[in-house]
Amino acid sequence: MPIKIGINGYGNLGKGVELAIRQNPDLELAAVLTRRSPSDLKTKTPGVPVLSVQEAGQLIGKVDVMILCGGSATDLPEQGPMFARLFHTVDSFDTHAKIPEYFDALDQAAKESGHISLISVGWDPGLFSLNRLYTEAILPQGKTYTFWGKGVSQGHSDAIRRIAGVKHAIQYTIPVEKAVESIRNGETPALTAREKHIRECYVVVEEGADRTRIEREIREMPNYFADYDTTVHFITEEELKRDHSGMPHGGFVIRNGKTGQGTGQTVEYSLRLGSNPEFTSSVLVAYARAAYRMASHGMAGAKTVFDVPPAFLSPKSGAALRKELL
Amino acid sequence: MPIKIGINGYGNLGKGVELAIRQNPDLELAAVLTRRSPSDLKTKTPGVPVLSVQEAGQLIGKVDVMILCGGSATDLPEQGPMFARLFHTVDSFDTHAKIPEYFDALDQAAKESGHISLISVGWDPGLFSLNRLYTEAILPQGKTYTFWGKGVSQGHSDAIRRIAGVKHAIQYTIPVEKAVESIRNGETPALTAREKHIRECYVVVEEGADRTRIEREIREMPNYFADYDTTVHFITEEELKRDHSGMPHGGFVIRNGKTGQGTGQTVEYSLRLGSNPEFTSSVLVAYARAAYRMASHGMAGAKTVFDVPPAFLSPKSGAALRKELL
Repeated sequence: MPIKIGINGYGNLGKGVELAIRQNPDLELAAVLTRRSPSDLKTKTPGVPVLSVQEAGQLIGKVDVMILCGGSATDLPEQGPMFARLFHTVDSFDTHAKIPEYFDALDQAAKESGHISLISVGWDPGLFSLNRLYTEAILPQGKTYTFWGKGVSQGHSDAIRRIAGVKHAIQYTIPVEKAVESIRNGETPALTAREKHIRECYVVVEEGADRTRIEREIREMPNYFADYDTTVHFITEEELKRDHSGMPHGGFVIRNGKTGQGTGQTVEYSLRLGSNPEFTSSVLVAYARAAYRMASHGMAGAKTVFDVPPAFLSPKSGAALRKELL
Repeated sequence: MPIKIGINGYGNLGKGVELAIRQNPDLELAAVLTRRSPSDLKTKTPGVPVLSVQEAGQLIGKVDVMILCGGSATDLPEQGPMFARLFHTVDSFDTHAKIPEYFDALDQAAKESGHISLISVGWDPGLFSLNRLYTEAILPQGKTYTFWGKGVSQGHSDAIRRIAGVKHAIQYTIPVEKAVESIRNGETPALTAREKHIRECYVVVEEGADRTRIEREIREMPNYFADYDTTVHFITEEELKRDHSGMPHGGFVIRNGKTGQGTGQTVEYSLRLGSNPEFTSSVLVAYARAAYRMASHGMAGAKTVFDVPPAFLSPKSGAALRKELL
C-alpha cells in the first residue's frame, strides 16, 4: 500500500512535489488543495482530486501526510497549526528567526491531535542544517561556514521589486571566491557579510524611470544590500526572460576543525542545483515518508530534520540499507 | 554528570578517542582496557584506571559506553558480541561484506542484555554511508559515486608487506582526476575500478631483494592491484619515515540525480582529513553520546548510523539546535 500524500498549494513547490512523488513507487499523490477555484487547476497527474483549502477536512483518512507548499511569510504561520490538527505534515518553513515560535505552535497542535509535524525541511534550513549539526558534534573545536549561491534570492529580488519605477528584478547571491578558497585551505577567518557574498541584480525599469535613483536605492537598502558589494545591471524584459528565468541555486557548508594535538580536518557539503524548487520538493517528499514512519512508531509533535533517523527517509529495509549503502 | 566512556584497545584509534573526549565537556574517560600488561600502558589522561581486557566485567556500572577500538579482521568479531553483553558499545567495524553477520551477532547480544551496540561508525562506513543514504532517498533517480583519497589504505599496504623481500610499504589510494571532473560536471559515466582510482606504492625492500619480481608481484596481485594502474616507488627506510608517516586521508561521495523533467541536481560530501584515526575517533566519540541517549530512550539492540537521530549526536538541547543550527 503506497503512502498517500496530499499537496497543499500548487505553486512551484507543489508542482515539484507532484513530480517527485512519481519517482517514488511507494508514494502516491492522493489529493491537491488550492486557494484558487479547484476547477481552474490542472494537475499533471490524471484523476487526482483537487479541493479547496476549506475542504481539507474531507481528506481525513484519505491522506497520510500533507505537504504544505505555502510560503513562510504569511501562508505557513496560519496553515501550519491548522493542518497539524488534521494530518501528519511536512513543510519548508524557512524564516530562521521565527522557527522557535513556529515550532511551538505546531508542536502543540500536533501533540494534541497525535500527529507528526516535520517543519523547516528543505536544504537550508534542512540538509545544510544537518551538516552543521553533524560536523559541529564531531569536530567541537572548529568553525562552520555556510555559503549560498550562485542562486536567486527570492527575498532580495522582491525587495528590489518594491522600489518605485522597478518592473521586475532578479537578484543573485554569489559566494566571494577568495573567502571560499581560504576556508577550503583550512583557514578559519572572521568574515563580514561583505567578505562572504556579493549581490548581483538584474533590473527591468518602467519607461522613463530614474535609473540613477533606483541603483542608489538598491545599493543603500539596509539589511538587504548596504552591507554587501552590489552590482546593478539594467536589462530589458526580453533579456530577463531569456537569461534569468531558470531557478538554479546551491551553496556549501564547510567546517574546519582541529582534533588531537591540532590536526586540521575539513568537512564540506555542497549542492549544485539545476532547480531550487524541484530539489526542495524532493527533500520534502523523502521526509514525508519519514514523517509517516515516525508516526507509525508512535511519535507525535513537531519535529525537524534533526529528529529524523536517516533510515526513515529511505524505502529500503534496514537490512538492505546495511548491505547496500553502509 | 558527564557520560562515562571506556576505551577498549589503546592503539591509534584508542589514543584518538582519548584526545577527542577532552574536546567534549559532557564526556569523561572512565577507564582504558588493554590486552597488554596494564602496568606498561601510560595514558595521556592522569589517573585513569587501566585494566586488562579480562577484567572488563569490573567496569560494569563504572562505564556508560565502551568504545571498541580493535581491528575489524580478528578483534571485533570476537570482542563485539562479548562487550555488547556488558556495556553499550560503539565500534568502527569496516569489513563491508561481513557487516550483516556482525550486525546479527551484536544485535542478539545487545538485545538480550538491554544494550545499544552502534556498529560501523566512522567515515566509511559511517558519514559516507549517511550521505549515500540521504542523497539516494532524496534523488531516487541518479547515480552515487564514492571516491577515497588521497590517503593510505591499510589493507593494501599490508598486502604489499606480505610479499617476500618487502620490509615496509605504504600504499596511497588516489582518485582519478578525469573521472572526478566528469562527475562534478553532472555526468553519470559507468566507471571501472581502474577508471576511478590509481594506486601508488612506496616500498622499502630487504638488502639484495629482487625489485623486478617485487614490483611484478605487486602489480599483478589479484583484487588488490591487478585491476588498477599501479605505480611502485622503491625508497629507503629513512625516506619512508620522513615522507610517509602521516595519516592523512579523505574522499568524497557525489550523487548526480535528476528531478522533474530531467533537471540535473548534484550533491557532494567531501572530507580532507589531516589524520584518519583522529577523525574516526572523533566520530566514534560523538556517536558514543548518541548511544547513551538512545539507551536513555529505552532503545536496545545493534544499530548503525542510519538509525541515529542526528540531534542525539550533539550535547545541545533540541531548542538550542533549532535556534543555532537549523
